[in-house]
Amino acid sequence: MTAAAPSPFARGKRGNFNNRRDEVLRAAARVFAEQGFRQATLEDVAHELNITRPALYHYARSKDELAAQCGDRALEEIREAIVDARGHRTGREQVMAFFRRYTEIICEDFGRCFVLVNRREYSPDQQDRTRLRQREIDQALRAMIVAGGADGSLRAGDAADISRALFGAFNGVPVWYRPGAGRTPGQIAEDFLAFLLRGFAP
Amino acid sequence: MTAAAPSPFARGKRGNFNNRRDEVLRAAARVFAEQGFRQATLEDVAHELNITRPALYHYARSKDELAAQCGDRALEEIREAIVDARGHRTGREQVMAFFRRYTEIICEDFGRCFVLVNRREYSPDQQDRTRLRQREIDQALRAMIVAGGADGSLRAGDAADISRALFGAFNGVPVWYRPGAGRTPGQIAEDFLAFLLRGFAP
Repeated sequence: MTAAAPSPFARGKRGNFNNRRDEVLRAAARVFAEQGFRQATLEDVAHELNITRPALYHYARSKDELAAQCGDRALEEIREAIVDARGHRTGREQVMAFFRRYTEIICEDFGRCFVLVNRREYSPDQQDRTRLRQREIDQALRAMIVAGGADGSLRAGDAADISRALFGAFNGVPVWYRPGAGRTPGQIAEDFLAFLLRGFAP
Repeated sequence: MTAAAPSPFARGKRGNFNNRRDEVLRAAARVFAEQGFRQATLEDVAHELNITRPALYHYARSKDELAAQCGDRALEEIREAIVDARGHRTGREQVMAFFRRYTEIICEDFGRCFVLVNRREYSPDQQDRTRLRQREIDQALRAMIVAGGADGSLRAGDAADISRALFGAFNGVPVWYRPGAGRTPGQIAEDFLAFLLRGFAP
């Protein structure tokens, strides 16, 4: 979807600063996800945007700054998915709603970068921030799993293990998913949930 | 286990060339898994072994050579796990036997390196080799899943999806597993299989 939208840069002066900044962050996220964070350069990000490196400096001064903001955007999206999922009645429905949206997010620019870039590649500060984010998301899923055990919609089990296994299964999707080639991320999530959650029926 | 065994280097002249070579490869695998392949240097490997870099040259001339050999060793171990698993009667038993051993392998030096290092970090040749290895292993698991569907021990389903989800779930284990802290890899595999395979009961 993003790739097909007209670039604010292509539109020249008409794109406002915030739109352009968003486009810069998305381009950075794509470059980091494809090449790895350590390997990627600001040149690569400028090239992805078809702008010069001095023009890029107007929006971002360092790779670390871009990484921090890409991580913030991913977390925002995933937090929204958590809040929306919590609106569902049972723990089972919450887990399903969460992973439907989560799979879409991690197949888009920011989520893909969040999942595919190895935390170790970042600066120590960014590693810490990423660790905290991953923990927050993990805790949120565990709470849904525990809720499902309590309300009888899921078989009670070790929420930590179940969370790890489910995130492992879904985090693999952006490794092989190619946009436009077959199922949408939402459909893949449905298919995965059908067999993964069958094992957690009460 | 490896860490506790006496190093052939520590034993001085008594360690033979093959033992030392094995130790070099294991050290390289550990360094690549911890630091990433691109980031790691031959200095780091020499440091891990407590030897000088000239001494290391006696066993390996380049990072690419080490990566290729670490990959070969991981594949050997995983191929053995596949052959052993095929000795079991039903597809379900084969899948379970495979992942029990696979989880142990990927929590040891070569398997850990195989699973944790991003393929993109390698040279183009090594990327191709790694892709072929991953495909071979994936095909082997899919065949067990298909066999389970045919013999009635597993619910028939999309073997490609099921293989992806299961590898995703198990490949996450070495990210958080720490030797000596709680369950063994084999116990973790049992716990994961208990709930993951429940969903595939016929």
